[in-house]
Amino acid sequence: MSTTPLRVALIGTAFMGRAHSQAWRVAPRMFELPRDVEMSVIVGRDAGRTEAAARQQGWHEAATDWKQVVERDDIDVVDICTPGDSHEEIALAALAAGKHVLCEKPLANTVAEAERMADAARDAATRGVLAMCGFSYRRTPAVALMQRIVAQGRLGDIRHVRAQYLQDWISDPDAPLTWRLDKEKAGSGALGDIGAHIIDSAQWISASLITAVSAQLRTFVTSRPVQGESVGLGGRGASGAERGPVTVDDAAVFTADFDNGALGVFEATRMALGRKNANRIELNGSKASIAFDFERMNELEYFSADDETGLQGFRRIQVTEPEHPYLEAWWPAGHGLGYEHAFVHEVVDLVRAIDAGSEIHPTFDDAAQVQRVLAAVETSAGDESRLTKVEKK
Amino acid sequence: MSTTPLRVALIGTAFMGRAHSQAWRVAPRMFELPRDVEMSVIVGRDAGRTEAAARQQGWHEAATDWKQVVERDDIDVVDICTPGDSHEEIALAALAAGKHVLCEKPLANTVAEAERMADAARDAATRGVLAMCGFSYRRTPAVALMQRIVAQGRLGDIRHVRAQYLQDWISDPDAPLTWRLDKEKAGSGALGDIGAHIIDSAQWISASLITAVSAQLRTFVTSRPVQGESVGLGGRGASGAERGPVTVDDAAVFTADFDNGALGVFEATRMALGRKNANRIELNGSKASIAFDFERMNELEYFSADDETGLQGFRRIQVTEPEHPYLEAWWPAGHGLGYEHAFVHEVVDLVRAIDAGSEIHPTFDDAAQVQRVLAAVETSAGDESRLTKVEKK
Amino acid sequence: MSTTPLRVALIGTAFMGRAHSQAWRVAPRMFELPRDVEMSVIVGRDAGRTEAAARQQGWHEAATDWKQVVERDDIDVVDICTPGDSHEEIALAALAAGKHVLCEKPLANTVAEAERMADAARDAATRGVLAMCGFSYRRTPAVALMQRIVAQGRLGDIRHVRAQYLQDWISDPDAPLTWRLDKEKAGSGALGDIGAHIIDSAQWISASLITAVSAQLRTFVTSRPVQGESVGLGGRGASGAERGPVTVDDAAVFTADFDNGALGVFEATRMALGRKNANRIELNGSKASIAFDFERMNELEYFSADDETGLQGFRRIQVTEPEHPYLEAWWPAGHGLGYEHAFVHEVVDLVRAIDAGSEIHPTFDDAAQVQRVLAAVETSAGDESRLTKVEKK
Amino acid sequence: MSTTPLRVALIGTAFMGRAHSQAWRVAPRMFELPRDVEMSVIVGRDAGRTEAAARQQGWHEAATDWKQVVERDDIDVVDICTPGDSHEEIALAALAAGKHVLCEKPLANTVAEAERMADAARDAATRGVLAMCGFSYRRTPAVALMQRIVAQGRLGDIRHVRAQYLQDWISDPDAPLTWRLDKEKAGSGALGDIGAHIIDSAQWISASLITAVSAQLRTFVTSRPVQGESVGLGGRGASGAERGPVTVDDAAVFTADFDNGALGVFEATRMALGRKNANRIELNGSKASIAFDFERMNELEYFSADDETGLQGFRRIQVTEPEHPYLEAWWPAGHGLGYEHAFVHEVVDLVRAIDAGSEIHPTFDDAAQVQRVLAAVETSAGDESRLTKVEKK
Repeated sequence: MSTTPLRVALIGTAFMGRAHSQAWRVAPRMFELPRDVEMSVIVGRDAGRTEAAARQQGWHEAATDWKQVVERDDIDVVDICTPGDSHEEIALAALAAGKHVLCEKPLANTVAEAERMADAARDAATRGVLAMCGFSYRRTPAVALMQRIVAQGRLGDIRHVRAQYLQDWISDPDAPLTWRLDKEKAGSGALGDIGAHIIDSAQWISASLITAVSAQLRTFVTSRPVQGESVGLGGRGASGAERGPVTVDDAAVFTADFDNGALGVFEATRMALGRKNANRIELNGSKASIAFDFERMNELEYFSADDETGLQGFRRIQVTEPEHPYLEAWWPAGHGLGYEHAFVHEVVDLVRAIDAGSEIHPTFDDAAQVQRVLAAVETSAGDESRLTKVEKK
Repeated sequence: MSTTPLRVALIGTAFMGRAHSQAWRVAPRMFELPRDVEMSVIVGRDAGRTEAAARQQGWHEAATDWKQVVERDDIDVVDICTPGDSHEEIALAALAAGKHVLCEKPLANTVAEAERMADAARDAATRGVLAMCGFSYRRTPAVALMQRIVAQGRLGDIRHVRAQYLQDWISDPDAPLTWRLDKEKAGSGALGDIGAHIIDSAQWISASLITAVSAQLRTFVTSRPVQGESVGLGGRGASGAERGPVTVDDAAVFTADFDNGALGVFEATRMALGRKNANRIELNGSKASIAFDFERMNELEYFSADDETGLQGFRRIQVTEPEHPYLEAWWPAGHGLGYEHAFVHEVVDLVRAIDAGSEIHPTFDDAAQVQRVLAAVETSAGDESRLTKVEKK
Repeated sequence: MSTTPLRVALIGTAFMGRAHSQAWRVAPRMFELPRDVEMSVIVGRDAGRTEAAARQQGWHEAATDWKQVVERDDIDVVDICTPGDSHEEIALAALAAGKHVLCEKPLANTVAEAERMADAARDAATRGVLAMCGFSYRRTPAVALMQRIVAQGRLGDIRHVRAQYLQDWISDPDAPLTWRLDKEKAGSGALGDIGAHIIDSAQWISASLITAVSAQLRTFVTSRPVQGESVGLGGRGASGAERGPVTVDDAAVFTADFDNGALGVFEATRMALGRKNANRIELNGSKASIAFDFERMNELEYFSADDETGLQGFRRIQVTEPEHPYLEAWWPAGHGLGYEHAFVHEVVDLVRAIDAGSEIHPTFDDAAQVQRVLAAVETSAGDESRLTKVEKK
Repeated sequence: MSTTPLRVALIGTAFMGRAHSQAWRVAPRMFELPRDVEMSVIVGRDAGRTEAAARQQGWHEAATDWKQVVERDDIDVVDICTPGDSHEEIALAALAAGKHVLCEKPLANTVAEAERMADAARDAATRGVLAMCGFSYRRTPAVALMQRIVAQGRLGDIRHVRAQYLQDWISDPDAPLTWRLDKEKAGSGALGDIGAHIIDSAQWISASLITAVSAQLRTFVTSRPVQGESVGLGGRGASGAERGPVTVDDAAVFTADFDNGALGVFEATRMALGRKNANRIELNGSKASIAFDFERMNELEYFSADDETGLQGFRRIQVTEPEHPYLEAWWPAGHGLGYEHAFVHEVVDLVRAIDAGSEIHPTFDDAAQVQRVLAAVETSAGDESRLTKVEKK
């Protein structure tokens, strides 16, 4: 292992900040990494809360001024876990300062922002500086295995892509009005938050881009109780409280054309009562099909038309074998992983790529393409669901 | 039991003809019916084949001229199991002759046909003559239970309807060109054949009508081997054979607005490799959710937000208890039913309604409404997926 | 089809009588049989109830004296659906009169009875008269497929047999005292009723006999409300009623040695709350494993160590394809069957065997072997669970 | 948080050593602990390998002499992750030195050892020194929830306990001869390794002790390829290699009596092809049932007879809600945990108990009870499976 550790600054102390902290902590311990990692500084707006987070999560320092931090010589990587409206400014500053950047998804709140970020990332790449967007599900082992299976050509012609991301944390009309329900902060609702994930997964796994969409957006509950303090996800609101307007969608549905000829159906919602984190994707090809549901994240369903007639069926693969992506570092077969492991794997791949000077995915270009799909969805939804071309870069 | 049996004529000898024969045979034996049933005559185009079907299926007579049969005094019920292009003519003749009619779905190949049939049925009703359309899945016990649960108000406000009908019997590009792939005979492809089922189920279960759709249709395999003889479903084609054009859709996808405010997503396809008969529907309400998959037809998933916190989860209800629809007549709990039982239940309800002079569903009006949705789907698909209003009756 | 139909007498009008009636009715219609079937006479103790059953189930005649019926020249097959204490007398008389016999399981209440029946069956066989015991689950398609898979040698060395039959219909301490809970009538409780099924399945599928068992029996609820009239299964009792003693086991558990070296674990219970008809069996071999649960009766799980590394997993085979046992006669793929279809298949195979003069299984010898295992279980349970050899024939 | 951290020494560098390292690393970061944790020293036999482990896993020091380490003043907790034959000596020394002890399961290889350890633990407790045995599955959230549900009295009278631990890592006859297959090192095979887990879970969840067992043990593959170096689990052997004798069981099956009247069935095997880590337990009570399978570790099945008739069914509870055990510290609902989280929770509870001076479970007495059951299983298996009383303490 190299003697100079990679020094990391994390910006953001909420849900994603905790998940990323866990990743930086665990990755170098469970995996053989070419360079050690130093959890140097965590940055937040509130000094006290950031101090507490540093202590709790094991960061050496706490800071409140991200602008100063991203300029520091003793920082190599900037990890951005703030709401989407601040991504561009931070990422551009960090890349300009020569820092490798890991930026949470969605990359930005608008296509214009995302494209400026992608431009900056391409430019930085010429100077050996990496930029990665945090579509973490790509590194859930079962999802990574899906991508590998498709890349091996096992599916034949892909006809169908069927992707859903179903949650229910605001199914209750009195769930509180968090920043995630505020268009200014979050850019969009279910669409940008969880829809972005399944758009990215679908394009990545199928190795194909979405070229057009026909969409509807819906806000079922148009006002919610205001809270003194924003929280990351859910919580239970008080029904007597003052209510403010919900300015984002509760649900987004769309059909999609892929450039490989596949026909897609997408649904993202936070109102599917009983579905907690049903991030699902299924691809049907001419030779095989694969299906995944994050609620059973250690499993992959695989059907092959090459199996003997009379013995065909979807196989429930437990994606816990040493042959499976990332599993060489973990436990014996059948001993499953959890949600945060995908973040660990992000860090593993990023550290390895930095050390090797190689590429890393998802690139900001990948993420900008997701943003263009999101924009096309909004355009279509505002134009009588008309089939709307996704802009080309 | 009344001394005068209900005398039935069945028109059609293929797949549906067999299923309906089984229903007429079994219903009076497993259920206590107010009138006995006589399987009087089966009608087909080919004399020899119809004779064989009569002998095999236990019909007293075989005939080849449906026009004559529907006029006979000794026939009370006409059961129409022919392709959709002949439904209107037969049904109108039968209703005019005062016969009760059970007509397979889709009711017709066009809205105009369906509406003329619905007019005739309404008119016949004034004379005590019943007309029923064979959306058989309504009488699969688990689906009937879904409808009951919604009717009891258990779901609260319905936000999402998610319906899929996934099959794979023409996933192989060399599967033969049957009448079901010929627009003249079948009207449409996956859309009218299986899409019609989920449209009907969705509207019936939710007690709500689809008001607008945004759709895409797709034909992935545009030519297929011609066969000497048409068969009902599937079969394996010869790759060397002469090929003819597929003139219907392989797959149909659409989003939908319901008049109760729910947002729907529909997908019907015959190309979802590995999915054999995944007729699925899920509804998410503000208080409960329900989900069904015909591949596990004796089960219903039910989630209630009224369950104690910390113990909530989708219940796998085995719909095999005496309290469940139609189950009082069958086996002990846990002893499941099969596909054809829904047809038995159709006959049971029809015979009871005839005897009682009461109404029966699905009416031809219900079926014409499905036809209007199918038409709106085709219109939207031909108009850049624009959100298209479903015509009002 | 032969011009002389096979004329059937059914003895018993309760649950099994209904299931067998359905089988005799349906088999000749859905399958191409070499001889037609005539549902000639149904026999019961109570004249009125038997008349009603004849009318309802479509038997030509009703009778109350089985002794007379089994002697009639116009009867070819005697189908015995009475409680176990009467099986021997009826079967012996029928076989002596040259009638083919289908006898419900368990074959008898004692080994001695069963062996006399097996002797008589072997003797009858020399005169071309067939005897078959109604272990119906052998003809559930998924179970028949299991047997075929093992017979093809796909499992390699069989190490484990894991069989459970879990029900809950007397979980309620106030469920009524039916004849099935009376040792005189029923011979034993869960052991003989449902344990017999999994013993038969396990031996048949594995092509191996149980050689020794170590067992426990348990009666959790030792008295139950007496009812005026016995019913076949379950029902809800009144808690205020007079109570009588339960003289059979509620549950039976045992480990078992098979003559092929496999190690078995068996559990049969009527007290597994929530498990309705969980007739489950799993075999683990050196090359493959298979697993079945009747609650999902149209599915078979199959794991093959020959599948590519990294893509191995239990396949969920939908046993609804034309290649699967008995499925050539039914519906398209994915259109499942129900409980009573296994009885239809019994009749199909019996009629074909009678016509062909071939053998039929399960033989009375097979059933007597089950009886010897049941006896060894009772012996072991009464002897401190000592590993007890199953008597050899 | 207290200013004096708890200083930990870990003995053992293999599979369990890695799992425990991850636990000590993560617990203080994801949970609010009353005292910080210092990963002071890791101890192994091989200096080089231990140095590497220290570096990789983040322990401050590496050492090879555990006797010296357990005496050190700057160590507060000794965590024992060595094979079972060394547990007694290490634990006794550590307790004598006043160190809190966490000892991997099984506690020992014999009852005598276990009881001496339990005596020492009880004695240490009087001096405020804690001893805990690492039956980690108790702290898998779904298992902890099972225990809570039973403790709340929701099950009523417990009738059945059905526990299986099915693995397949030595299903291949050429899997190598590891220390786990050597009676000297491991004490027993599947029985002590994985059977111990389900015995502990069953007793803990049911709040009842096993009083007698009737057992069989089986070694299906009696010799295996010798390897130069032992590894923790599995691996693929070379078929040409020299073979040595397997001196432990491959599988253990037994029936069991519980002191609350429940009837148990247990099976532990490493030869169930396709089952990777199927640690399963189901309890059936008079009022409710619960079932768990570690292969779907974030789910619990719960059936309540109190649910409305007609809507009863096993609920699939996703044990990922803030109300569920240990979940307040992790991710939003539906974002599952993995295998190693149970070890994190062990550390959490141990650190809190040390700080509070309260009790901790499983105690060495709990673990000695497991050992007595294991001994009774071996006795019974050696005595014709005779029902054998579990010795009382």
